[in-house]
Amino acid sequence: MRVAGDDLHLHNDYLRNCWYVAAWAHELIDGRLLARTILDHPILLYKGDSGSAVALDDRCCHRGARLSKGRLEGDCVRCMYHGLKFDASGACVQIPGQDMVPKGMSVRSYPVIERDSLVWIWTGDADKADPNLIVDFPYLREPGWRGVPDYLHYDANYLLIVDNLADFAHLAFVHRHTLGGSEEYAFKTKPVEVERQPRGFRVKRMHMNAEVPPFHRKVTRSDARIDRWNVGTMHIPGIFFLESGFAPAGSGIERGDISQARQYRNCQFFTPETAKTTHFFWNYLHNWNTDDPTIALSLHDSMVEGFHEDKAIIEQQQRTFDADPDFRMHPIAADAPLAHFRRVLAQLIAQEKGAALAA
Amino acid sequence: MRVAGDDLHLHNDYLRNCWYVAAWAHELIDGRLLARTILDHPILLYKGDSGSAVALDDRCCHRGARLSKGRLEGDCVRCMYHGLKFDASGACVQIPGQDMVPKGMSVRSYPVIERDSLVWIWTGDADKADPNLIVDFPYLREPGWRGVPDYLHYDANYLLIVDNLADFAHLAFVHRHTLGGSEEYAFKTKPVEVERQPRGFRVKRMHMNAEVPPFHRKVTRSDARIDRWNVGTMHIPGIFFLESGFAPAGSGIERGDISQARQYRNCQFFTPETAKTTHFFWNYLHNWNTDDPTIALSLHDSMVEGFHEDKAIIEQQQRTFDADPDFRMHPIAADAPLAHFRRVLAQLIAQEKGAALAA
Amino acid sequence: MRVAGDDLHLHNDYLRNCWYVAAWAHELIDGRLLARTILDHPILLYKGDSGSAVALDDRCCHRGARLSKGRLEGDCVRCMYHGLKFDASGACVQIPGQDMVPKGMSVRSYPVIERDSLVWIWTGDADKADPNLIVDFPYLREPGWRGVPDYLHYDANYLLIVDNLADFAHLAFVHRHTLGGSEEYAFKTKPVEVERQPRGFRVKRMHMNAEVPPFHRKVTRSDARIDRWNVGTMHIPGIFFLESGFAPAGSGIERGDISQARQYRNCQFFTPETAKTTHFFWNYLHNWNTDDPTIALSLHDSMVEGFHEDKAIIEQQQRTFDADPDFRMHPIAADAPLAHFRRVLAQLIAQEKGAALAA
Repeated sequence: MRVAGDDLHLHNDYLRNCWYVAAWAHELIDGRLLARTILDHPILLYKGDSGSAVALDDRCCHRGARLSKGRLEGDCVRCMYHGLKFDASGACVQIPGQDMVPKGMSVRSYPVIERDSLVWIWTGDADKADPNLIVDFPYLREPGWRGVPDYLHYDANYLLIVDNLADFAHLAFVHRHTLGGSEEYAFKTKPVEVERQPRGFRVKRMHMNAEVPPFHRKVTRSDARIDRWNVGTMHIPGIFFLESGFAPAGSGIERGDISQARQYRNCQFFTPETAKTTHFFWNYLHNWNTDDPTIALSLHDSMVEGFHEDKAIIEQQQRTFDADPDFRMHPIAADAPLAHFRRVLAQLIAQEKGAALAA
Repeated sequence: MRVAGDDLHLHNDYLRNCWYVAAWAHELIDGRLLARTILDHPILLYKGDSGSAVALDDRCCHRGARLSKGRLEGDCVRCMYHGLKFDASGACVQIPGQDMVPKGMSVRSYPVIERDSLVWIWTGDADKADPNLIVDFPYLREPGWRGVPDYLHYDANYLLIVDNLADFAHLAFVHRHTLGGSEEYAFKTKPVEVERQPRGFRVKRMHMNAEVPPFHRKVTRSDARIDRWNVGTMHIPGIFFLESGFAPAGSGIERGDISQARQYRNCQFFTPETAKTTHFFWNYLHNWNTDDPTIALSLHDSMVEGFHEDKAIIEQQQRTFDADPDFRMHPIAADAPLAHFRRVLAQLIAQEKGAALAA
Repeated sequence: MRVAGDDLHLHNDYLRNCWYVAAWAHELIDGRLLARTILDHPILLYKGDSGSAVALDDRCCHRGARLSKGRLEGDCVRCMYHGLKFDASGACVQIPGQDMVPKGMSVRSYPVIERDSLVWIWTGDADKADPNLIVDFPYLREPGWRGVPDYLHYDANYLLIVDNLADFAHLAFVHRHTLGGSEEYAFKTKPVEVERQPRGFRVKRMHMNAEVPPFHRKVTRSDARIDRWNVGTMHIPGIFFLESGFAPAGSGIERGDISQARQYRNCQFFTPETAKTTHFFWNYLHNWNTDDPTIALSLHDSMVEGFHEDKAIIEQQQRTFDADPDFRMHPIAADAPLAHFRRVLAQLIAQEKGAALAA
């Protein structure tokens, strides 16, 4: 039995006309020339003197030397092989020892936008790069939320990470001793809401009168049983938001009383590096006791621990698919959101390709 | 000049309807979930509470996670990604959070048989898996023989190891200072019997009035010259038995008087992991002074030393063939057994494929 | 915009009917069996008792074992797998345990010539291997010149190294702090002579009243400004000679007065190992104060430092081309010599292939 989009993770069929996270803004301070491959493009990211983020192909158009090994000059970058200089639009503006710059001497530049401490990039048709299409996560800018932004590299296709987050039951088995807390989460609870959306899905799950999961126990120091909710939203092309809260068992979250809850907001951005590797940007924020910096750091460390539990499984999946592309997966009931997501993504990619062929 | 079957080592054309050694029985104690790729199949081997060996595909049929990273429960194994549970037949018997297990939720199971401390596996048609087809090596169960079973991994096709054992003349050059003893073995002696068998070959070689080879010298502490016999038998698909003995020079082994001989029995089982890598299981047994445990250990260490001499050459051969698949080998007279073995194996594989096509 | 021969570095289209450097002569002392892959051929190089250099295929024709792991016997080499012995012509002259050597038991031998401390090899048609075709660099034999011969391995196609040396402007950017001295070299100077030759090119460049480059400063200990000339000559298939000199600024080198100059002669030989890796043999010689051995050693070390600056860029170019064979380079004016060289080489390779097809 096949699910539409089942094989997407085997190909480099990316949706190109959409925004992906290219970097955290803090990665570009101090004029750093950051080399990062995005959707198979080797790209140079930097901020010059003007402070605007720039993205250029990281290959000098002359002989292919890396511009990221070059030198920042104002808002320009100079290739340090033969000295060609490129401006922020990618145009070559100087060739040492040569008076004229021939037509066509340029490297590709990509639309980039810095917003809420993230640098977004558009690798599709530049004229379609509408900033309003950037998926919004307000907690990165709203006061009262604190977290530690971080990055993880995966040796796996980004959609295998999307799959992972489509079914929270894995918390019970993969994260039993870190983010989960007990296997009840898989056996006794189910999603209470599953919403298919035009560009993603939304899943809500409750766990009442439960053991406190270890990561929350670390920052609250209380063993009292809790009521827990998780609301996960996944957006095309691979952006995940999680709203969750923990309240004393019986305090009424099922009736909407969250007055005693401690809440978290988590954002995760998956950007394909290649068909088999992924950039993973994330932040896990809380809005209580935010004057205590150790809480954000402890939550950060717990997440790193949990993400590495996922990473081991997901990278092994990638190796399994690489070793045998004929391997076929079998869906279970809980795969409905992931199947929907892959179906929608496959349609969008097909539309984009169709439009490109027609044009 | 080409020999039939010359290229077998370049392909993953395995004979599938036959038994291969999958593990030593002792590798499965304590409920260990052993991951081992066999004939390109990633396989999970284990013994549950019932004590029977089980072999399942090491990929959860749901999303391909490794069952060998799962949890043993009785005779079942639970995938620790989303918690699916599989019994020893490979059937999924539980999906957490889901009442019914859909039809077709199962992983492949393989016939396995434990015999004489070896676990055998059949990766072909299960209904043809006749236990009587297991090649017998009685010295693993007969009292009076002692040895230390071991395992070596080769980065080479298993048939290059078969080749190696088809011509003992290599003892003189490869193992001069370990298992051989002198180059006379190549220059002065030849096989006294070479028997082509329907599923293998048998080669007998004598060396009279010879220097004692170093490995035997270590356990006898005598420099007296010896008469030596080696009788090697190779069986499809890659099973080698060696009977050998060393007697005082002139004591009459050529007339059948082996009363003063010290004898050894060696078994070697080559199981393809992939077309370019091999599992190598072996034991080298002796039947004299068996109350002294240091003899078996010394022989074991000498074999490890000798096998690594072979391994260096054989893995280099593999790299040579990989680098240039057009390289052609030229046979010498001593290759007759090897050529026969490859011819027989090529015929058996062709028959098996023909039968599969007809069916 | 494409240049003829632009893609040569992506293929293993070698010119075969020409001499390549296989080794420095000193690499073959003491009967060493040197394994070196040349133009994709795994080759054994050695000098037997007669002292003549020998080059044979480094694969025993029997089962492909490495002859370089064998044993030198006089001018012969014995394979240490089954003991086959080969003479300097590649003929098998002994098979242990077998009276006759069958026809066709031989490995390929290659014409080799030792000249001026270099061992040259010819991998094309042996009957075309005319020693007079060896490109001559007299400074390796002429008295009065001193240097330290050395070797560097590149993970890049040899033509990318040829490219590098076709435009000295890179000295200004890549070697600013080692071999260059100032960026003026790129901005203020241009080649004063560029000569296209039937099998290469010649480029002359002057830099007047310049900072002394660091490598020359180290051996002269003077900061006085200098006049500098560089004359580089590149020969098919990848042989570079550099004549250069440094004189006190204003001492008249532009009028041909080099009486106050300190001169250097540099030879570099690029031999393809594979399409993506290169053997790089070089020597940097000087003819002043040659009784002081520290000068040659200091120059040697400076060159190693500078070559590693090139190597980092060139190996990155190779990775860039590997990652995206569709990447297209754009020429600048200074690429005229390299474009000529690639055009000539492409023509010679095409002629050679055409002749082979016709024959």
